[in-house]
Amino acid sequence: MTSQFSYNPVTPAIVEELSGIVGEKYVVYGDPEKLEPYSHDEVADPQYAHMPEALVRPGGAGEIAEIIKLANRERIPVTPRGAGSGLSCGAVPVMGGIVLLCDRMDKVIEYDKENMMITVEPGIVTNDINTLIREDGLFYAGYPMSTETCHIGGNVAENAGGGKAIKYGVTGRYVTGLEVVTPKGEIVELGGKRVKDVTGYNLIQLMIGSEGTLGVFTKITLRLMPLPKVVVDLLVLFKTTREAIDIVPSIVTSSGIIPTAIEFMDRTAVQVTCDYLNETIPYQAAGAMLLITVDGPDAARVEHEYEVIGELCLNSGAIDVLVADNPTKSERFWKVRRSIPDAFRVDSPHLSVEDIVVPISKIPEMVAGLEELSRKYDVRIPCFGHAGDGNLHATPVMNPQWTIERWHETLEDLLVDIYKLASSFGGTISGEHGIGSKRKKHMPLVCSEAHLDMMRSIKLALDPNYILNPGKIVDVYPAARTR
Amino acid sequence: MTSQFSYNPVTPAIVEELSGIVGEKYVVYGDPEKLEPYSHDEVADPQYAHMPEALVRPGGAGEIAEIIKLANRERIPVTPRGAGSGLSCGAVPVMGGIVLLCDRMDKVIEYDKENMMITVEPGIVTNDINTLIREDGLFYAGYPMSTETCHIGGNVAENAGGGKAIKYGVTGRYVTGLEVVTPKGEIVELGGKRVKDVTGYNLIQLMIGSEGTLGVFTKITLRLMPLPKVVVDLLVLFKTTREAIDIVPSIVTSSGIIPTAIEFMDRTAVQVTCDYLNETIPYQAAGAMLLITVDGPDAARVEHEYEVIGELCLNSGAIDVLVADNPTKSERFWKVRRSIPDAFRVDSPHLSVEDIVVPISKIPEMVAGLEELSRKYDVRIPCFGHAGDGNLHATPVMNPQWTIERWHETLEDLLVDIYKLASSFGGTISGEHGIGSKRKKHMPLVCSEAHLDMMRSIKLALDPNYILNPGKIVDVYPAARTR
Repeated sequence: MTSQFSYNPVTPAIVEELSGIVGEKYVVYGDPEKLEPYSHDEVADPQYAHMPEALVRPGGAGEIAEIIKLANRERIPVTPRGAGSGLSCGAVPVMGGIVLLCDRMDKVIEYDKENMMITVEPGIVTNDINTLIREDGLFYAGYPMSTETCHIGGNVAENAGGGKAIKYGVTGRYVTGLEVVTPKGEIVELGGKRVKDVTGYNLIQLMIGSEGTLGVFTKITLRLMPLPKVVVDLLVLFKTTREAIDIVPSIVTSSGIIPTAIEFMDRTAVQVTCDYLNETIPYQAAGAMLLITVDGPDAARVEHEYEVIGELCLNSGAIDVLVADNPTKSERFWKVRRSIPDAFRVDSPHLSVEDIVVPISKIPEMVAGLEELSRKYDVRIPCFGHAGDGNLHATPVMNPQWTIERWHETLEDLLVDIYKLASSFGGTISGEHGIGSKRKKHMPLVCSEAHLDMMRSIKLALDPNYILNPGKIVDVYPAARTR
Repeated sequence: MTSQFSYNPVTPAIVEELSGIVGEKYVVYGDPEKLEPYSHDEVADPQYAHMPEALVRPGGAGEIAEIIKLANRERIPVTPRGAGSGLSCGAVPVMGGIVLLCDRMDKVIEYDKENMMITVEPGIVTNDINTLIREDGLFYAGYPMSTETCHIGGNVAENAGGGKAIKYGVTGRYVTGLEVVTPKGEIVELGGKRVKDVTGYNLIQLMIGSEGTLGVFTKITLRLMPLPKVVVDLLVLFKTTREAIDIVPSIVTSSGIIPTAIEFMDRTAVQVTCDYLNETIPYQAAGAMLLITVDGPDAARVEHEYEVIGELCLNSGAIDVLVADNPTKSERFWKVRRSIPDAFRVDSPHLSVEDIVVPISKIPEMVAGLEELSRKYDVRIPCFGHAGDGNLHATPVMNPQWTIERWHETLEDLLVDIYKLASSFGGTISGEHGIGSKRKKHMPLVCSEAHLDMMRSIKLALDPNYILNPGKIVDVYPAARTR
């Protein structure tokens, strides 16, 4: 068993073979400066980085299949990569080998308006899909927050979320078809332009969120939705975090309205970000804010909905409700929300963006628990995120007076406490960023050994040589942990 | 390999052990009359039936785990079963052994209004869930057509659909948590009351639609939705099938409205059913009908939507649009739609209820192709079903002048032609009923060998002794096909 998953290095002879498959100019080898960007994703901490031995940029499924067959033959790990905007080190080649960059595969294969479906290659920027289809009154609703940079292939690999899950679900709801290169190097078509399909096991949903460990997606078919004609955002200011958070579960239950998004920002998050952006939102009096989006097919309907929600907030202690009923105002609010991680990164590069998820009713207790942990560890934990989905970006930031060593040691314990707390409320350690290599060791906090064993069995059943993105989600065997 | 999947008979000693686990009164053995109802599902054709050797009715997950461990030890097949309302022989014990009937596990475990979630045992009648939560303004939207009889466990096992997929999706969209007894007899918790979750592989969605081959569900957590306050049905009469079907794809694209359901019934289906029910819907002039449902949170919105759709139909050649804006009228229309299979069964028990699915835009061509096949084979193929989902119940009915032998021979060829036709339009052989043993041999028409191999690998990875519901979806090895 032990030797089964030892890997071989990428040699010049193999590089020549790779060049033969994709063309010489699409292979990088022996150039640390050019390879370095592919040694990490958006997780800044260098402890999670690992250099690839070679970068290969295939032009299509056939080339990917050849590369994977070669990798199986030579026992070389292959790590697929999209835009590199991940937050769990899912695209980091932790065992070295080949990084398979899908950026050249960025075309729309078929835009089928009549069926409201689009088939694209994995390397297209997700936002470009929405730009293309907007004029036809359509949109792709599996919206992640980093649409301006991320690729749809990465979204599918991570089952990316974002802030609209409460109304629209996440990536997985909209994927009806996939062309996949399997870990054995076979090209398989799954699903298609079908609203329903029960032809055997749901391999599409197994692939979605598998973080590039079960297959490389080469075609993705997405179901599109009618673009909501009216969108309004409310920025609701509360005196305290508790007041803001307490109202979240009751918005849906007491109004019967499902908003598009309910985003939460605590005082620290708003303050640091407004300073960073030179933004003049009147945050001084507010201890926390909710950014609530309502959308729909006509103004009357949307107005009714946001009035009901606004009333509810004011009756529950909100200081003020600011209404953004045009794109410029909306963008002003959302820019604050989206810029929070960047604002904190300016303050200190040493932070850990987490994305725990709990049942929506448990958010108030979770936030209270995070405040307690912040005091216990003497670490700021600004908290923001998708409160309407129960998905919170609790983000421990290094105490500026500490050494980096103390920070790393403390963070380890703090993360375990945060994850245990989420788990104690029936939650889990990741709602949208994924496990990757960053959270792998914490999986036993939320998955039983039998559960992890099912994942291991499936991984090895589809990837018997443990070639495709090894070292992610769950360790297959202790022997596979190190090279 | 060949001997790996041979099974042993259920002996009196094993029956004694089973009685020790669940209690003597919950085991049936050696009584063909009492076992016969568990030898088939709603597929009437006796060629698909197979007698179980024993029936066991466990009271909980612990008992199921013990039974499955025993079955692994003794190499006895175990076939889980719900209400037996399936249409693909998924619950038929085709290799004999034990039928595991989940009817005693019919309790609500937790009804969590605040999180809009409910956790139930598998044996609860799906309709009873909606009855329970209706007064709180909530509903379970993964609606199958046979709600009055089917169990939620069976719905999850088959990823049951129904007519509302275009707006609400199917069963799988609403399942956020499962407790599963694995094929090895371990009890595993997957997911929970979470709107988002990317903690490793999506085993929940792999389990959903796995037809009882990958696990037995012992707890099911469902997300609930606000009950639409207003529901209106339109019965739209068209002169020809072509006119009725041609309008389906354009309803959504040209109006931007996603109706709750667009059901199609051809003249034969309506006529036979109205006669069966003594219903006086003015069908004589109509060659086909659409039953269109619109729902929403208020009357004004719903009225606007059905008026837009009604206009569209009238402008596209509809003879008449009948509006049902109260439950009594609605039930009258829907009763016709729901009773079609029963009406044809009275005429002849020899029919094959199919549920092919195609991209919505391909429905007109699919229906035209079915008419051609009907002429070619001299077999009536009444067609009805979920046109809005691209999911059609083309239902070949035996020519009454034929012998049963001729019917069986012809049906084989006819089904292959129907499936090939659906496949040629980018469709597949089952949109909601599943593969089971009935459609297993046709899987190669729509899945490549590499695709089928992935399913086989996953099955054997989780069920190495091939104990749980063997002989369904895909044959694992030729040796496993026969005992």
